[in-house]
Amino acid sequence: MATKEMYMKLALEMAEAVVGQTSPNPTVGCVVVKDGIIIGMGAHMKAGDAHAEVNALNDAGDGAKGADLYVTLEPCSHYGKTPPCTDLIIAKQIRNVYIASLDPNPLVSGRGVEKLLQAGINVKTGICEDEAINLNKYFFHYIKTKKPYVTLKTAVTLDGKTAATSGDSKWITSEASRLDVHEYRHKHDAILAGINTIIRDNPHLTTRLPRGGKNPIRIILDTHLAIPLSSNLLIDKQAPTIIVCGSDADGEKQGKIEQTGATVKRMAQTKIEMSDLLQWLGEEQITSLFVEGGSTVHGSFLESGFFQEIIMYMAPKLLGDSTGFPAFGGAKKSLMAESYPLHFKSVELIGPDLKVVAIPAKCGGDEDIHRHR
Amino acid sequence: MATKEMYMKLALEMAEAVVGQTSPNPTVGCVVVKDGIIIGMGAHMKAGDAHAEVNALNDAGDGAKGADLYVTLEPCSHYGKTPPCTDLIIAKQIRNVYIASLDPNPLVSGRGVEKLLQAGINVKTGICEDEAINLNKYFFHYIKTKKPYVTLKTAVTLDGKTAATSGDSKWITSEASRLDVHEYRHKHDAILAGINTIIRDNPHLTTRLPRGGKNPIRIILDTHLAIPLSSNLLIDKQAPTIIVCGSDADGEKQGKIEQTGATVKRMAQTKIEMSDLLQWLGEEQITSLFVEGGSTVHGSFLESGFFQEIIMYMAPKLLGDSTGFPAFGGAKKSLMAESYPLHFKSVELIGPDLKVVAIPAKCGGDEDIHRHR
Repeated sequence: MATKEMYMKLALEMAEAVVGQTSPNPTVGCVVVKDGIIIGMGAHMKAGDAHAEVNALNDAGDGAKGADLYVTLEPCSHYGKTPPCTDLIIAKQIRNVYIASLDPNPLVSGRGVEKLLQAGINVKTGICEDEAINLNKYFFHYIKTKKPYVTLKTAVTLDGKTAATSGDSKWITSEASRLDVHEYRHKHDAILAGINTIIRDNPHLTTRLPRGGKNPIRIILDTHLAIPLSSNLLIDKQAPTIIVCGSDADGEKQGKIEQTGATVKRMAQTKIEMSDLLQWLGEEQITSLFVEGGSTVHGSFLESGFFQEIIMYMAPKLLGDSTGFPAFGGAKKSLMAESYPLHFKSVELIGPDLKVVAIPAKCGGDEDIHRHR
Repeated sequence: MATKEMYMKLALEMAEAVVGQTSPNPTVGCVVVKDGIIIGMGAHMKAGDAHAEVNALNDAGDGAKGADLYVTLEPCSHYGKTPPCTDLIIAKQIRNVYIASLDPNPLVSGRGVEKLLQAGINVKTGICEDEAINLNKYFFHYIKTKKPYVTLKTAVTLDGKTAATSGDSKWITSEASRLDVHEYRHKHDAILAGINTIIRDNPHLTTRLPRGGKNPIRIILDTHLAIPLSSNLLIDKQAPTIIVCGSDADGEKQGKIEQTGATVKRMAQTKIEMSDLLQWLGEEQITSLFVEGGSTVHGSFLESGFFQEIIMYMAPKLLGDSTGFPAFGGAKKSLMAESYPLHFKSVELIGPDLKVVAIPAKCGGDEDIHRHR
């Protein structure tokens, strides 16, 4: 591997390790190198705390003069909760700055680079750019659209069933796959499920990793506020919980739900419109949404077209059961050609199960927008 | 690669190339080597024709004396349509015989080896044994069970649908996947479909490969003899066609079907029992059956448990459609735990599609029976 890529990959690895804990900020890693010696390493670890460049340059101290700096995202050039990183880089007299991906916000993209160039610093962008864009795909999507990046997760038998006719779905996949799901919960700002899942399975929807992990905000689609007040997620107080309902849901039930400490979000229409919901979630600074839906919820997301990724855990078993539940419901179709087109992004074995990741086919070129120009 | 494996892999490759054209015999390859020079190569190419050893030893001529012989299956020691290969090997004064897999028939397995040893020839078995067993998996299964090896093939959307509610299924997968299906048709003795498929799609069920290929015998499950006499497969005369019906199907319709040249097989019971059907197919020397069923046919095979392999082509698309057809139908289940357990054997991309191959979990150790002892 070329030297520059080697340092950038280290910076990317540091950033990767903190995915899930920096929202609504992106994850960023930074490495400072002088004469082939690493003299500073750092990542941005929490929104409001120091940026990656600051942490890495603090390590470097006075040695930073004349050094090279590798950073996974274009340094900020404006005052936010912390001062501009470009100012610090200039003050520390860094010689070369290597950047993986530019700022995704079209209003400021390239300004950090410009400011560094004006100060006489050499700047090279686009090193390991694909990895850097993928690393912050939730953030990049959120900055562009003001809506969360939506990942639909489902677990199915090889014949595509997510539950038997009876509703029973325990367990489709292996413990290894379920652990992988908890990694995603940790990395997402919010998790979403439908009222049917809550009534049937009474889940906690928390992150249970051997190392602990961060709980996502829990969002339940419950048009008529049918949720039992005894539901685990109204009782356990483990994470903020939002019950989303239609405009004509019962006000008294709303009061009782709010008494448990949960929030009730009443939408403007009697049905929950995905577009309105996602816009509101964006306003609430939820940058990523992990949808663990059943047939109905996934069917709604599919029909709305508001999703960026599908993760399907596929168990090595056949259910049969012609009326068992498919992973994606929705309206009847008369033609196979009306299917929603995807690209397979990856497939791997997790324990005995297959994990298939797919993205909308139309988004294939979408990410190119933020590539190095 | 060790030398012995190198020669055996060549023999396996020759055998692999003729899978589909030797039934009800196995495919066998043979290489004769003397002083590091290959002096003979051959495969068994058609039931009734010369065995692989004969073809390879013919190449070698008088030079065979003192040579080494590599063969993928234990040489026969009995008179069939051709004389025993062991006699020829002994007569040619071969010095060493290397065998990949023993004869799968427990009544004669090991007898060929014994006869060679008695003649003072050195014999080593078990070289590339796994590949050799896999190569002849249809034949091995047939010899053991007297029933065909059953492969269930299906094409689905990522959400597991094989047709929209309307019945439309054209096309789910890509041309690359469909071409792969024709390779399987070529390699199988028979293909099976249900009457619903015939009525809806009016298929030919023939092999259409760029190189041509062999048509499988066509078997249609049609309990009540509902098949239209205008169906392509009753008209095209491209392959033998068998219509399987229940005991009380209409006799007059049977006569009309038989006039088209097709065979009608009337089962003993009013419903078609898989066990009876497969036993009869075995008696007809059909060693391998490729089932291109819809929801109902695959559901029946799943419930009977009579299948050895599942091949699923999965297209990168989502149908939604809560009442679309699943790949496997069958009776309602109340528990996910009642699913039929499988092992994933392989997964690969074919064009834009995923091809997943799975086998019954309980058969994991089944193949071990024929391993080298």
